[in-house]
Amino acid sequence: MDVKKPASQENLNGNESESQISHLALDIGGSLIKVVYFLRSNGSGGSVDDSGKKSDPVLEGRLHFAKFETSKIIDCLEFIRSKNLHLAGFRHHDASANDKTLIKATGGGAYKFADLIKEKLGVVLDKEDEMDCLVTGANFLLKAVHQEAFTYVDGQKEFLQIDQNDLYPYLLVNIGSGVSMIKVDGDGKFERISGTSVGGGTFWGLGRLLTNCKSFDELLELSHQGNNRVIDMLVGDIYGGSEYSKIGLTSTNIASSFGKAISDNKELKDYKPEDVARSLLRMISNNIGQISYLNALRFGLKRIFFAGFFIRGHAYTMDTISVAVSFWSKGDAKAMFLRHEGFLGALGAFVSYENHGLGGLKTHQSVQQFAVSETYAGKKMCCLVNEDLNDNESIDFGVAFAA
Amino acid sequence: MDVKKPASQENLNGNESESQISHLALDIGGSLIKVVYFLRSNGSGGSVDDSGKKSDPVLEGRLHFAKFETSKIIDCLEFIRSKNLHLAGFRHHDASANDKTLIKATGGGAYKFADLIKEKLGVVLDKEDEMDCLVTGANFLLKAVHQEAFTYVDGQKEFLQIDQNDLYPYLLVNIGSGVSMIKVDGDGKFERISGTSVGGGTFWGLGRLLTNCKSFDELLELSHQGNNRVIDMLVGDIYGGSEYSKIGLTSTNIASSFGKAISDNKELKDYKPEDVARSLLRMISNNIGQISYLNALRFGLKRIFFAGFFIRGHAYTMDTISVAVSFWSKGDAKAMFLRHEGFLGALGAFVSYENHGLGGLKTHQSVQQFAVSETYAGKKMCCLVNEDLNDNESIDFGVAFAA
Repeated sequence: MDVKKPASQENLNGNESESQISHLALDIGGSLIKVVYFLRSNGSGGSVDDSGKKSDPVLEGRLHFAKFETSKIIDCLEFIRSKNLHLAGFRHHDASANDKTLIKATGGGAYKFADLIKEKLGVVLDKEDEMDCLVTGANFLLKAVHQEAFTYVDGQKEFLQIDQNDLYPYLLVNIGSGVSMIKVDGDGKFERISGTSVGGGTFWGLGRLLTNCKSFDELLELSHQGNNRVIDMLVGDIYGGSEYSKIGLTSTNIASSFGKAISDNKELKDYKPEDVARSLLRMISNNIGQISYLNALRFGLKRIFFAGFFIRGHAYTMDTISVAVSFWSKGDAKAMFLRHEGFLGALGAFVSYENHGLGGLKTHQSVQQFAVSETYAGKKMCCLVNEDLNDNESIDFGVAFAA
Repeated sequence: MDVKKPASQENLNGNESESQISHLALDIGGSLIKVVYFLRSNGSGGSVDDSGKKSDPVLEGRLHFAKFETSKIIDCLEFIRSKNLHLAGFRHHDASANDKTLIKATGGGAYKFADLIKEKLGVVLDKEDEMDCLVTGANFLLKAVHQEAFTYVDGQKEFLQIDQNDLYPYLLVNIGSGVSMIKVDGDGKFERISGTSVGGGTFWGLGRLLTNCKSFDELLELSHQGNNRVIDMLVGDIYGGSEYSKIGLTSTNIASSFGKAISDNKELKDYKPEDVARSLLRMISNNIGQISYLNALRFGLKRIFFAGFFIRGHAYTMDTISVAVSFWSKGDAKAMFLRHEGFLGALGAFVSYENHGLGGLKTHQSVQQFAVSETYAGKKMCCLVNEDLNDNESIDFGVAFAA
């Protein structure tokens, strides 16, 4: 496909030096494509330094986040084309790349859809390792963004002050279609130590089969209204309402997920979809919490950060994971969550345009609005953190690239 | 209900001394009632000692095993009444028990159905702790029964010679409706260290909702014919057929259980029930294998024995659990199974009539047919092991009680 250079490209990709700045990065997973792109602000040209004074010429703008279902990749590519984002990569002076524009991409789909994207957009994907990107994205967020990590207890978010000198090691649990558990020891230093196939794809896949929901978010919303005790077999259901206190099980602990469905003379249609959705969400969230804790314990990791698009800032999901970690650790460990949970990989791919490690990151707490001001690609990069960050499709960051 | 003393009771419960021998024990779980009962053989009166010679008068007979769905407890009680098994307990000379016959029972249903059983059979349940019984039953089997434990690799059972001096500690994973994981350090020495609600009740409960199967065994049989790759999202599905070798994932590893159901424009009715059953069985078996291994690792346990009625001697289940343990341990650990997998609790309750610990158990390998000859309730107890033990409803043991 022949892609014409649009008039607007000049705005995005003004000069040779600025064209080295990445503008689009993709994380193509099994279920979702996560898109991060940078758009220059109108009137861009000034900059803000630590003291808030104007400084050298900069490229100011914002990081935008978007997501698409992987099955609707054509819509995603159309979106990219409509905004000319595919022209905002960088050119590699390597003969094998035929001077094509390179776009940073990660996730399995960067391999699977490389040919399709080349055909549709005329760009070559520069593939970055998935785990690398997740870790880079997590480190970036944890070090650079003010009020990024929080615990969720009894319906309350509590933001954590992360001591950057005491960040490592930690366990990163990324819940996408499947779940990866990564021990992170530093910038670029990590090991994928475990995972589980029972993840977001299981919730959505099984959920679709069991309910008539048309989207993941509809299923999640449905689960909010349900009651898992209708279908789950509780300890009290087995013990006739009693607890089994000798081994620390109360009557309301779930003995068997979906276990009540065995003895009822009911079919699927006799259950409310919201109750089914709730049991499913609880089963999966609890299971992830348990396996994560066991892995953290194994390596003596104090902190577990949960991320990935499965969570969606959903209260019941975070509550179940938190309770699971607390239950299995007997209160010793706490689950932590990230506000930009779904975009770790895409953000890591974005950052990887120039440097994989972000060792030099410093948070400038003095300027709250600009939570990070960092040397990035030889330029200063400031991230503006908006207050309302849970709507992942909105603008989350303002970024300024300064000389 | 008034229960008459039948003529046949004399045969079962001949004299005061023999009435101390337990004849019926129940394990009433969330899904199944497991029944162990002893029936005296015709012409009983001889005994077999180590050398095969006749010895002192004995009560010879066999241990019988039976199971019922807990939801059909009335059928179970009718079965017990039809065989007069409820008259074969023991009498407790304790005023509070009102001289009723006491029957040993374990599992949550021993609490839940105590009143019903008293009403229907006129007997009082003497409740034994569930974990205690599982451990007692497992220790009994592992120490006393020849060729009880085996590994399952590439479709082959390999029986293990258990060194009784090197049996402890081990991890016992009992997969009933839910799953209990118990660290066993000796006779009566154990701790329930973990468990998961994703167990046999989940397979059967979710399986019933997803397929039209009418029984657990039908669902299990169905899964045998299915192909999980139709619904599971494999690493290769995400990576376009490639593997993700850097982190040790091949293209055929499952990335997301049921993950393919998210992107297909298919409803439940468009999938073959056998494929659904297969994915479900694989998800649950793999998950149990993983959590078990992580717990074994945590406590440095070399051996993991899997038991419980979920397994049913089913090849694919054992294979999945074995592969999971091998995969997660990178080949360091092996899953082991027990031939009498489903009756640990009931057997433990049976044994508990007189003594909870079985410290004195010795295996008499010299007499193969009588794999165990043991002092039990002050009497010698021999267990005859039949060759075909996988049909759990058949007679498994022959037992002789000798003076």
